[in-house]
Amino acid sequence: MDENIRYMFHPRSIAIIGASNKLWKVGHAVIANVLYGDCLRRDRTLGYKGKIYPVNPNEDNVFNLKCYPDVLSIPDEVDLAVVAVPAKFVPGVIEQCGQKGVKTTIIISAGFGETGDEGKRVEAEMVATARKYGMRILGPNCLGIYSLYEDLNTTFARAMPMKGPISFISQSGAFCASVIQYSLEEHFGFSNFVSIGNKSDIDDADIIEYFATDEHTKCIGMYIEALKDARKFLKVARELCKKVPMVALKSGRTEIGRSAAKSHTGSIAGNDIAYEAMFRQTGIYRARTMSELFDAARALAYQPPPPPEGGIAILTNSGGPGVVATDAASDLGLPLAKLSDATIAELNRVCPPEWSHRNPVDILGDASPDRYSDAIHVLLEAGEVSGLIVITAPQAMTDPETLAKRIVEAAKGTTKPVIASFVGMISSPAENYVEEQGIPEMSFPEDAVLGMHALVHRSRILRREQIWQ
Amino acid sequence: MDENIRYMFHPRSIAIIGASNKLWKVGHAVIANVLYGDCLRRDRTLGYKGKIYPVNPNEDNVFNLKCYPDVLSIPDEVDLAVVAVPAKFVPGVIEQCGQKGVKTTIIISAGFGETGDEGKRVEAEMVATARKYGMRILGPNCLGIYSLYEDLNTTFARAMPMKGPISFISQSGAFCASVIQYSLEEHFGFSNFVSIGNKSDIDDADIIEYFATDEHTKCIGMYIEALKDARKFLKVARELCKKVPMVALKSGRTEIGRSAAKSHTGSIAGNDIAYEAMFRQTGIYRARTMSELFDAARALAYQPPPPPEGGIAILTNSGGPGVVATDAASDLGLPLAKLSDATIAELNRVCPPEWSHRNPVDILGDASPDRYSDAIHVLLEAGEVSGLIVITAPQAMTDPETLAKRIVEAAKGTTKPVIASFVGMISSPAENYVEEQGIPEMSFPEDAVLGMHALVHRSRILRREQIWQ
Repeated sequence: MDENIRYMFHPRSIAIIGASNKLWKVGHAVIANVLYGDCLRRDRTLGYKGKIYPVNPNEDNVFNLKCYPDVLSIPDEVDLAVVAVPAKFVPGVIEQCGQKGVKTTIIISAGFGETGDEGKRVEAEMVATARKYGMRILGPNCLGIYSLYEDLNTTFARAMPMKGPISFISQSGAFCASVIQYSLEEHFGFSNFVSIGNKSDIDDADIIEYFATDEHTKCIGMYIEALKDARKFLKVARELCKKVPMVALKSGRTEIGRSAAKSHTGSIAGNDIAYEAMFRQTGIYRARTMSELFDAARALAYQPPPPPEGGIAILTNSGGPGVVATDAASDLGLPLAKLSDATIAELNRVCPPEWSHRNPVDILGDASPDRYSDAIHVLLEAGEVSGLIVITAPQAMTDPETLAKRIVEAAKGTTKPVIASFVGMISSPAENYVEEQGIPEMSFPEDAVLGMHALVHRSRILRREQIWQ
Repeated sequence: MDENIRYMFHPRSIAIIGASNKLWKVGHAVIANVLYGDCLRRDRTLGYKGKIYPVNPNEDNVFNLKCYPDVLSIPDEVDLAVVAVPAKFVPGVIEQCGQKGVKTTIIISAGFGETGDEGKRVEAEMVATARKYGMRILGPNCLGIYSLYEDLNTTFARAMPMKGPISFISQSGAFCASVIQYSLEEHFGFSNFVSIGNKSDIDDADIIEYFATDEHTKCIGMYIEALKDARKFLKVARELCKKVPMVALKSGRTEIGRSAAKSHTGSIAGNDIAYEAMFRQTGIYRARTMSELFDAARALAYQPPPPPEGGIAILTNSGGPGVVATDAASDLGLPLAKLSDATIAELNRVCPPEWSHRNPVDILGDASPDRYSDAIHVLLEAGEVSGLIVITAPQAMTDPETLAKRIVEAAKGTTKPVIASFVGMISSPAENYVEEQGIPEMSFPEDAVLGMHALVHRSRILRREQIWQ
């Protein structure tokens, strides 16, 4: 792991080159985000606590901080530089950053490799300059990074995600904003978030090497359009996937999609069969849609992989969603638990006689929070059950908030994975509570099944590693 | 079409058998829902406006309405009876409803065919009784129905959906509550909503026959576990699908799912290949997940099918989601428009030179509401474009609410379908506005593509019909 990259996530000091008092400038949003976490707030408790140096020859002060005409004039070491100036000025800035001894420079500015051959040439020159000084470059043409446990937001995006266990890499800047928006509504959080841009220097492999050393990161999520150095990525990911679960959405899966991706980032996506093989070899869980990416990442980040024995139990107060979940499990080849006689006897004790007497465990439309709680205890203690999906359809007679509390209580202390689905509910206090307590909750049973599938996949990867050792 | 079934949706008078002042009784929730639309409200403007007769030998008045000891004592005609009394009393009640000349009786009570052979026998006897009097039965073991344009809610569920163009049939009662919950959060509405229960008499085919005559119904959605009389359904659906688009989620697709369904409703789901063939023959769009069911139903209900010529255009301010949408379109075989030189020239006029110059039409991260509006006009007027998916990823520089307004304005007056995706946003004023204005909006681009696919499928069905005529 390159220590320069660690400094990108944990800088002691930051220079913001292009910092501006002018509201419509990208450099204005960047420095406001560094200072306040979210550029629309004015509260330093949310922002980065290290030293901040605005750089702009046309300003004396930015946000009441002394502004320097160039990075070389800063009377202090600079670990990280964030560059948001027009493309034509960037090569000169990079030379100065190199001279200054900056450890990593994030180039937000666009107008390089993504525009064609001349842009690629300039990009390569900047990387050569950086190499000369032992500096690393992220970007150009990126949104920046978030290092959540440093309260650091170097992007020009509006929102600040929650702190949490997911570290994310996105090759699309706009995708980042969508992911953060979605995470805020679904209550999952990030340790780190990287918009990787053109990957002129730092690439996906470099970033996951750092993520794998980060104590907060429990799952790495990736949106990939094309890898720059697939061999390097394969080698690094195969090794690190033993330590940290990874999930990737590789777009350009299809031929037309690939040709669209080429037009977007100028990168050649390559044959999908090669990518498929790489995902298999590394143990990265492959998401096929945005929704799968988040379902899998949330499951892997917040829940443990199931033990190898047994299968998944589906608990429900409603037959329909139970059947739908069973179909989805069957589609994915997810093993379902066959209930033992002992488990059936235990459930007989806590359920009315009409319960389904099989998996999916349908404890009926009038299931109270107590009945749910009892059934969860029975199922999580059953040897044949390796993980649990708890489905609740809204029923006139059940208070969802009490139910949510009892589900969380009943699942506490288990080492088996639990995923919930409050069917059809998108944002209610009940769901929010369950999510905030670390149980991923999905509006549709199929999504909960996908999340559980990612955990079963993880469990298989870990066993494969054990066998090989 | 059986006129008795029309009376179920448009009764002049309703008897609620089992109506009660006791809060915890199902019959209490039912009469409160009939009176107030939503049982938690106390406002008659939302409730059913016809005559309401509570029936219960143990009550003198229910909600200040005179309560009758039995249905025969009501001094008026009764079009619809809703029965919520213990199973053992139901056969006697059915005999009395028959004698009274009730047109249709909804049996909410459970404890019949779903419990085994004895229950099936009682059910058959009740149907024989009803036949004798020319009465129809919905249920037993159902949640009831909503007839939204009559402000009529005969269920014991808590929520009242919005009025709108979808008519829905569900074989799972709990599924109904989930669907309604989801519809309220995603702003789509219903004309009618039927929890069909055990289908002892009235079955799916009977209901869709009525829906096809209903002026408000623009799309029929179905959740099916098993059809009772597949031949009858095939005949009716094949004919009516020419008039009204239909979409169905048939659960028990897989063998394990089928066995779970059997345990749930006691119905034998039958071979999925036969169902697949039936969906193809009738022209019903088959959803494979809950999310697909709603995406397709919303698209079919709110948007027109595309003209046969040309393909779909994807407009985006962000390459990544554009590529993801392209992959999804390719997976489904959705034809994408190849932009003509004239269209490219028009887009050159309204976009900066860096726009993608191809479909997906990426008008860049700084796309203003005006640029979106201009590009939408160009694309909807282009002959090679048969329908439009508008993707917007949140960007620091764009105000989503203004954007939403401009999208709606720009799409006004077109005869081509438009579907939107505010990527990653689940419930924001911008999305809500777009949805309320009749443009389906999905959080993920793949879902918008699925909705458009249902519309292209519809267009093909209609052409097939034309060829045959």
